[in-house]
Amino acid sequence: MTDLVTFGESMLRFSPPTGEPLERTDTLDVHAAGAESNVAVAAQRLGLDTAWLSKLPDSPLGRRVLSELHSHGVDTDVVLDEGRQGVYYIDRESITERRNVIYDRDDASVRTTRVEDLPLDRVRSADMFYTTGITPALSATLFDTTSELLDIAGDADVTTGFDVNYRSKLWTPAEARDTLVDLLPSVDLLFVPERDAELIFEQTGPVEERAAYFADEFGIDTVVVTQGSDGATALRDGSAVRADTFEVETIDSIGSGDAFVGGFLARYLDGDDLTTALRYGCATAALKRTIRGDLAVTTPEEVESLL
Amino acid sequence: MTDLVTFGESMLRFSPPTGEPLERTDTLDVHAAGAESNVAVAAQRLGLDTAWLSKLPDSPLGRRVLSELHSHGVDTDVVLDEGRQGVYYIDRESITERRNVIYDRDDASVRTTRVEDLPLDRVRSADMFYTTGITPALSATLFDTTSELLDIAGDADVTTGFDVNYRSKLWTPAEARDTLVDLLPSVDLLFVPERDAELIFEQTGPVEERAAYFADEFGIDTVVVTQGSDGATALRDGSAVRADTFEVETIDSIGSGDAFVGGFLARYLDGDDLTTALRYGCATAALKRTIRGDLAVTTPEEVESLL
Amino acid sequence: MTDLVTFGESMLRFSPPTGEPLERTDTLDVHAAGAESNVAVAAQRLGLDTAWLSKLPDSPLGRRVLSELHSHGVDTDVVLDEGRQGVYYIDRESITERRNVIYDRDDASVRTTRVEDLPLDRVRSADMFYTTGITPALSATLFDTTSELLDIAGDADVTTGFDVNYRSKLWTPAEARDTLVDLLPSVDLLFVPERDAELIFEQTGPVEERAAYFADEFGIDTVVVTQGSDGATALRDGSAVRADTFEVETIDSIGSGDAFVGGFLARYLDGDDLTTALRYGCATAALKRTIRGDLAVTTPEEVESLL
Amino acid sequence: MTDLVTFGESMLRFSPPTGEPLERTDTLDVHAAGAESNVAVAAQRLGLDTAWLSKLPDSPLGRRVLSELHSHGVDTDVVLDEGRQGVYYIDRESITERRNVIYDRDDASVRTTRVEDLPLDRVRSADMFYTTGITPALSATLFDTTSELLDIAGDADVTTGFDVNYRSKLWTPAEARDTLVDLLPSVDLLFVPERDAELIFEQTGPVEERAAYFADEFGIDTVVVTQGSDGATALRDGSAVRADTFEVETIDSIGSGDAFVGGFLARYLDGDDLTTALRYGCATAALKRTIRGDLAVTTPEEVESLL
Amino acid sequence: MTDLVTFGESMLRFSPPTGEPLERTDTLDVHAAGAESNVAVAAQRLGLDTAWLSKLPDSPLGRRVLSELHSHGVDTDVVLDEGRQGVYYIDRESITERRNVIYDRDDASVRTTRVEDLPLDRVRSADMFYTTGITPALSATLFDTTSELLDIAGDADVTTGFDVNYRSKLWTPAEARDTLVDLLPSVDLLFVPERDAELIFEQTGPVEERAAYFADEFGIDTVVVTQGSDGATALRDGSAVRADTFEVETIDSIGSGDAFVGGFLARYLDGDDLTTALRYGCATAALKRTIRGDLAVTTPEEVESLL
Amino acid sequence: MTDLVTFGESMLRFSPPTGEPLERTDTLDVHAAGAESNVAVAAQRLGLDTAWLSKLPDSPLGRRVLSELHSHGVDTDVVLDEGRQGVYYIDRESITERRNVIYDRDDASVRTTRVEDLPLDRVRSADMFYTTGITPALSATLFDTTSELLDIAGDADVTTGFDVNYRSKLWTPAEARDTLVDLLPSVDLLFVPERDAELIFEQTGPVEERAAYFADEFGIDTVVVTQGSDGATALRDGSAVRADTFEVETIDSIGSGDAFVGGFLARYLDGDDLTTALRYGCATAALKRTIRGDLAVTTPEEVESLL
Ligand SMILES: Nc1ncnc2c1ncn2[C@@H]1O[C@H](COP(=O)(O)OP(=O)(O)O)[C@@H](O)[C@H]1O
Ligand SMILES: Nc1ncnc2c1ncn2[C@@H]1O[C@H](COP(=O)(O)OP(=O)(O)O)[C@@H](O)[C@H]1O
Ligand SMILES: Nc1ncnc2c1ncn2[C@@H]1O[C@H](COP(=O)(O)OP(=O)(O)O)[C@@H](O)[C@H]1O
Ligand SMILES: Nc1ncnc2c1ncn2[C@@H]1O[C@H](COP(=O)(O)OP(=O)(O)O)[C@@H](O)[C@H]1O
Ligand SMILES: Nc1ncnc2c1ncn2[C@@H]1O[C@H](COP(=O)(O)OP(=O)(O)O)[C@@H](O)[C@H]1O
Ligand SMILES: Nc1ncnc2c1ncn2[C@@H]1O[C@H](COP(=O)(O)OP(=O)(O)O)[C@@H](O)[C@H]1O
Repeated sequence: MTDLVTFGESMLRFSPPTGEPLERTDTLDVHAAGAESNVAVAAQRLGLDTAWLSKLPDSPLGRRVLSELHSHGVDTDVVLDEGRQGVYYIDRESITERRNVIYDRDDASVRTTRVEDLPLDRVRSADMFYTTGITPALSATLFDTTSELLDIAGDADVTTGFDVNYRSKLWTPAEARDTLVDLLPSVDLLFVPERDAELIFEQTGPVEERAAYFADEFGIDTVVVTQGSDGATALRDGSAVRADTFEVETIDSIGSGDAFVGGFLARYLDGDDLTTALRYGCATAALKRTIRGDLAVTTPEEVESLL
Repeated sequence: MTDLVTFGESMLRFSPPTGEPLERTDTLDVHAAGAESNVAVAAQRLGLDTAWLSKLPDSPLGRRVLSELHSHGVDTDVVLDEGRQGVYYIDRESITERRNVIYDRDDASVRTTRVEDLPLDRVRSADMFYTTGITPALSATLFDTTSELLDIAGDADVTTGFDVNYRSKLWTPAEARDTLVDLLPSVDLLFVPERDAELIFEQTGPVEERAAYFADEFGIDTVVVTQGSDGATALRDGSAVRADTFEVETIDSIGSGDAFVGGFLARYLDGDDLTTALRYGCATAALKRTIRGDLAVTTPEEVESLL
Repeated sequence: MTDLVTFGESMLRFSPPTGEPLERTDTLDVHAAGAESNVAVAAQRLGLDTAWLSKLPDSPLGRRVLSELHSHGVDTDVVLDEGRQGVYYIDRESITERRNVIYDRDDASVRTTRVEDLPLDRVRSADMFYTTGITPALSATLFDTTSELLDIAGDADVTTGFDVNYRSKLWTPAEARDTLVDLLPSVDLLFVPERDAELIFEQTGPVEERAAYFADEFGIDTVVVTQGSDGATALRDGSAVRADTFEVETIDSIGSGDAFVGGFLARYLDGDDLTTALRYGCATAALKRTIRGDLAVTTPEEVESLL
Repeated sequence: MTDLVTFGESMLRFSPPTGEPLERTDTLDVHAAGAESNVAVAAQRLGLDTAWLSKLPDSPLGRRVLSELHSHGVDTDVVLDEGRQGVYYIDRESITERRNVIYDRDDASVRTTRVEDLPLDRVRSADMFYTTGITPALSATLFDTTSELLDIAGDADVTTGFDVNYRSKLWTPAEARDTLVDLLPSVDLLFVPERDAELIFEQTGPVEERAAYFADEFGIDTVVVTQGSDGATALRDGSAVRADTFEVETIDSIGSGDAFVGGFLARYLDGDDLTTALRYGCATAALKRTIRGDLAVTTPEEVESLL
Repeated sequence: MTDLVTFGESMLRFSPPTGEPLERTDTLDVHAAGAESNVAVAAQRLGLDTAWLSKLPDSPLGRRVLSELHSHGVDTDVVLDEGRQGVYYIDRESITERRNVIYDRDDASVRTTRVEDLPLDRVRSADMFYTTGITPALSATLFDTTSELLDIAGDADVTTGFDVNYRSKLWTPAEARDTLVDLLPSVDLLFVPERDAELIFEQTGPVEERAAYFADEFGIDTVVVTQGSDGATALRDGSAVRADTFEVETIDSIGSGDAFVGGFLARYLDGDDLTTALRYGCATAALKRTIRGDLAVTTPEEVESLL
Repeated sequence: MTDLVTFGESMLRFSPPTGEPLERTDTLDVHAAGAESNVAVAAQRLGLDTAWLSKLPDSPLGRRVLSELHSHGVDTDVVLDEGRQGVYYIDRESITERRNVIYDRDDASVRTTRVEDLPLDRVRSADMFYTTGITPALSATLFDTTSELLDIAGDADVTTGFDVNYRSKLWTPAEARDTLVDLLPSVDLLFVPERDAELIFEQTGPVEERAAYFADEFGIDTVVVTQGSDGATALRDGSAVRADTFEVETIDSIGSGDAFVGGFLARYLDGDDLTTALRYGCATAALKRTIRGDLAVTTPEEVESLL
């Protein structure tokens, strides 16, 4: 049985060497990258049994993605099909907080995925099904599929996890809101970046209030608000706990949020309390920041050495 | 005044280091690549004044292409617009004659280019206007644009050059044929790979016969048949001349045909005779094969040292 | 159920860039490498369901090996334990046929592996169990384990495959002979390089005679003699078939033999005839030679395109 | 018409990978670098039409420089001639503020450049002619040429821009002073680093006083004093304005001053006020510091995103 | 005559590119590294005549070590013998103060070195003989050899230098203590990291007290306590002096302690006073931190520019 | 005592990655390179005790050269002085036999070397003193120094070795001839490439005749004519012997001639006969061709494995 099943797109991420502008570069570094596969990799490495569901093109590019996920021990159940391999380019890694990302993910194979393409029994027999707000933003088909998967999981008493993960290049806050209000009622465990709570749901109060908004409005059991360099806060049954970040020398900040979720779930699905899970998530995110690429290529020992 | 104006798509070419499978690579080499821009670069470096017309996305990727073409001194008149940057991936450079190429060029900005987008006066005042069979294969709009440009050039007494350049990933031989029979009557100087003459036009005779077929059937002044490692043959006014290849250690064979055309035109437009132009083309193609990337980064001195 | 279970050591292979002497190099390329894991990777990629059994150190080095094997989809059942990660260094890739290899594999974790450490049910339920002459050469314990595994497989009616794979740095021909005569009677399908047949078993006759020697002397069903650039010959029920090599530009010859076996088994275990399997093996070996590293990172499509 | 014409030397800059001492390195990174070409590149990329005048050796090294400048869209009018390609080596990029630079620029082709070698009409029809104190320091011929060019520009009512840019490896402060007092009266817009004002002209007062000294002593319209991490101050018609630096993570500080000038001129020649130009200059310099190489490979969008 | 003779192991250090986890890396950087050879290199580069004594395997790996030491001008007197080349791997360079190092140095050639293998006359005619606590920790043979060498040096009136250099992967504090109490009475100049004084000898008082403990307990002339980012303190004849660190941007902290010793000895053996030697040591250590690898590839000019 | 003392220039050689044109490259590989230091490195590695005499600039560049020579165990006696570090660039390694080399060696420090700068006792006590025709071609001072050194060696009964080594970028054949006729009478052992014998001395006969010409005309004891891919022929006392080349896959042909001389001398100065020395020279040259850089980074074992 799989502890965690995630569903979403995985891209190839292309980035020039440090200090080299994309416009001038003669080489690109290649990494697999996608919110839901990032979470699966982090969680698998930290002890869970995970599987990632998706569609990929039947080509060396699709296999490049698969091969990197497999290398971390993640199980995959992936349709190899027509369509493109989504990619994204990072222009300048070094302008603090002013990263320039170019997505080229239109017509990616994943966009046509329907529930009938997917191994629903794996979803039904998992401990948790997880996806993010990126997936329904990618296509109308994927919105339907996401919605149905959340219901299928719910019907089978599988906990559902969801990260809002707003991407301004995919949709406007208003569009995101319209879609998310349909999906959030099916979510048991919500991750929401503090800034998305403001941007999409106009929550500008203290972090606990923002968390409470989601709990109340959509009947969500557990809400985790990630707060960037301020750490993270979790709310369950009306009581909030929080964890601070760990100080590291940042080499690559992309994927911190997914690393946080992967680390959090590793402990949460293992039955640990919220505070432990939050701290574990923050430590995993911190370690991720010392590694090039979107993936948290770390170990339980490393995470624990940080705690 | 510009000697040579070319029109077409330019992609980014991504290739792994020698011996590294695309499926496993952690780095990609990046080069600008496109039949008509390849020809412009080769011709410019060998003495012509050239300009390349196209559309590119207004992004670091589009600028990456422009910057490489500019670096060789080619003038560009390019609309920066919506749309994707076309790319292609080379999987295995090493299986002799069994290269595996993955195109990812759908929705490229160039596909929506109309004659109104282009600086027609530059076309009208050039010595030659050049494009290839790849361009009309990319979209219906581009077919129209190509056709109109050939007519505009013809009406202005600008010589028109055209390379058949059949690409099986873009269309079938039958589709190619249907399109090309419309365009070829407007062509003054035709380049046609020997294998395309067979594949599309069912010409299987001796090379001179194949050349004569195009001259007769479409009323083309000068026909140059490229014959891979057998060199090239040109036919004008019923009489044929030919040139052999030059022996070099091949590092990268992609772009040989375009290098040939660029070298040929450098002499042809300068008024040299067909034999000289053919030999110059073969030498340029041979030098290209010693260089990584699609472009013939060479000099007149190097070409001459080979002759 | 797994089609093919292999057992043996996997090392890390360190090699300097082309043309750089090991004594001077400032960088090393890293690849996973080991006869039995090489075979598993080739076979898995070409369609079989494979698993590799072994011991590795519980360290980033052990995980480096695992991660590369997983990336190709091979299932592993590996004890993470004390001991070293075996490595080997390639000094000069370029002196044709005069490669200089430095093994540093003493005290590798794998050397203490006992049958009790291994998932015997996986062995018993496979189609084939495979190992090579390298494994029993590594330690007395491994000799016992190899011998027992062959028996366990035999008792469970699992076909046993074995490659003689003589390594002069591990033992003398006389030592090899003494050990192999004990093991070969348990083998159903034998791979033996032509030169090993001579060196260890003093077989100097025509290749069919050499094959017959093993069939007769040890009661082996099927004997495949690999003949380097002369291809390979197989003997079953007294009748021999052979296949030629495929011409490619060699980038890295190490691992050709394992690629051959992996390709052969992909077809053999799928029920194809000997001739088909031999040709498939030769094509896989040829493709391997175009790839840096020990592994045949290829696909059924690539292999078929060569046939 | 060209907005900005600059004249000076461009070198090749060779630097080892981060953390690698020059004495031990097995590879060098290569970039084009020269104060006046740096300014042209920055200004061109930020919207001006620029041309760079110089002499270069007729060799792959001279073409390497040209090709990098062309790649940024700078027009060049360069004599290809005898002489060396000047180069410089960076030893240790990492000892903050203790960079070790080795110039090897003697006998560079540029040193023999006379006004008759140059396209004076381009100078006369530009909006601004720009050079720096490095140029007259390189040879007696270049001093004469610089002096004559400033006069030719002045006679044609072309604004003249000049950066003091003192280099201790080229001349002493006393030598610099003797030369500069001859040239400064012909300058309309002066850039002077605060430390040069002290070192050469013994100005140690507040920055506005230093600026006023140049305005008064040499009759210069506009004086801009660059103040390193303290930003920059400009004085015109007796009134001073200033701008602060923008905080970035510095990867390579070389070329900040030239990036500042290029950014400043982009706005200044476009008619913006001094304050706007200063801020634009500071933002361009800050972005430059995030990029490896001497050149400010940036865009108006990036600069504006920083403002 | 040689000023400084050092004796110990030198390994090859393998490290992945910045930000790349060892578990995933496809390339490793290679450097020579060993406490006593690090000291010899630093001291030689800063003006001493040094020799390093050891055993190495007679292989490209042993020669790789020798060649790097020779490149810095260190003289070597090394037995080429059986045995392994010790190596170590650095997993994550970036987690500040949480470096993960994997030693693979068992069975290294050096472990069997006896005094009869060594050129004792070189020891006897040196100004100083130097080794560290790592050497006796490597094998019983090396403990004997170290002990005898200290006596041989003492008998010949050669000053003996020793750095405690505790390595938790080699022995426990208790084992270290038992061994060191035997050796320290033969030491004239002791270097001891502050943390080792606490860990092994339970000295937790102020730094001068810790130093006094060694002077009193073992009759050591001069005791230097290194204090990481707090600099260093030296005690002789009951009076203490200290020096602060120099601020630099750290690229690689490994080898700081050895660089400190090398810099200190360069001045100390030249007859300078303790304070000068301490400052020189701190400056050398600071420069080392700006360089990738264990070695302080610096010059007297660079060190002095920092003072 | 030193077996072999050589005198000449050593440059830094800069070359782009394979297939990358110099005009476009963003990185350069760095190697030490110079005929007489190449010979010293080859001979030292193959068993002789060698020293190289020269002048180098007192800079990281000069130290870069020294450090590479030291790394091979060559002793150096070098004045660190003013002047430049000579460099050379390789443009295209791949156009067989059409290598494009750019020398930038004017004003190199070495050019002002006088005999009084050199340790003449080392010359007088060597077995052989060796230099090449490149040295006297570099400056009038160096011609004098070369001439005097040959006399000093002769007077001290030190065998003198000399390689004609004509370089068309340094002088014309006529100039070379005029100079060499002055020097050759002082030479005991001459190496002369077959093509130089023709170009400079108009010797077009069979190789033995060409050798005899030098023996007779200048009274030279032993004449070795190198014949590129035809191997080499030696003449002494009127009788000629020859050796063939060894077949290898050439990666870098530069330095073959020097490797030949180094290998030849290793055996010749050890007392072996001419035939042995010739074969050893050819094997060393062949191995050199498998290595990037000018130096024959090989071992006696490797050479012998080829014989
Ligand atoms: N500067 C930082 N240092 C250490 N950890 C950080 C830092 N910034 C973010 N994190 C960690 O990463 C987690 C997610 O950060 P966030 O910025 O929300 O990620 P993202 O926007 O990539 O989803 C935070 O909860 C925190 O634990
Ligand atoms: N093996 C070769 N060696 C040298 N030149 C070659 C070789 N193959 C092709 N060429 C040159 O390249 C030209 C174009 O070759 P072709 O195979 O038609 O190119 P493409 O298919 O890339 O358009 C030929 O006319 C010839 O001059
Ligand atoms: N030069 C070659 N070209 C193509 N294929 C080859 C070549 N040499 C060997 N092979 C293939 O590799 C297989 C194994 O070769 P062999 O030399 O026996 O491998 P190894 O010694 O590595 O085990 C051969 O049967 C053949 O199919
Ligand atoms: N540490 C810094 N951070 C950001 N911008 C800086 C920094 N140092 C300098 N700059 C910018 O670069 C400009 C030029 O700096 P300066 O040190 O005078 O350059 P240079 O000496 O290279 O000519 C300054 O005016 C400022 O705008
Ligand atoms: N952060 C730092 N910045 C500058 N110098 C330092 C720093 N840390 C250590 N040093 C220098 O290195 C010396 C040795 O440091 P230490 O940590 O004891 O080295 P190690 O543990 O590697 O032996 C110190 O005495 C100091 O001079
Ligand atoms: N193609 C080759 N293969 C193997 N060895 C060669 C080859 N060409 C030259 N050599 C060896 O190198 C030696 C010197 O060659 P030569 O061309 O004279 O060198 P150079 O011109 O570099 O001085 C020859 O005597 C021969 O031994």
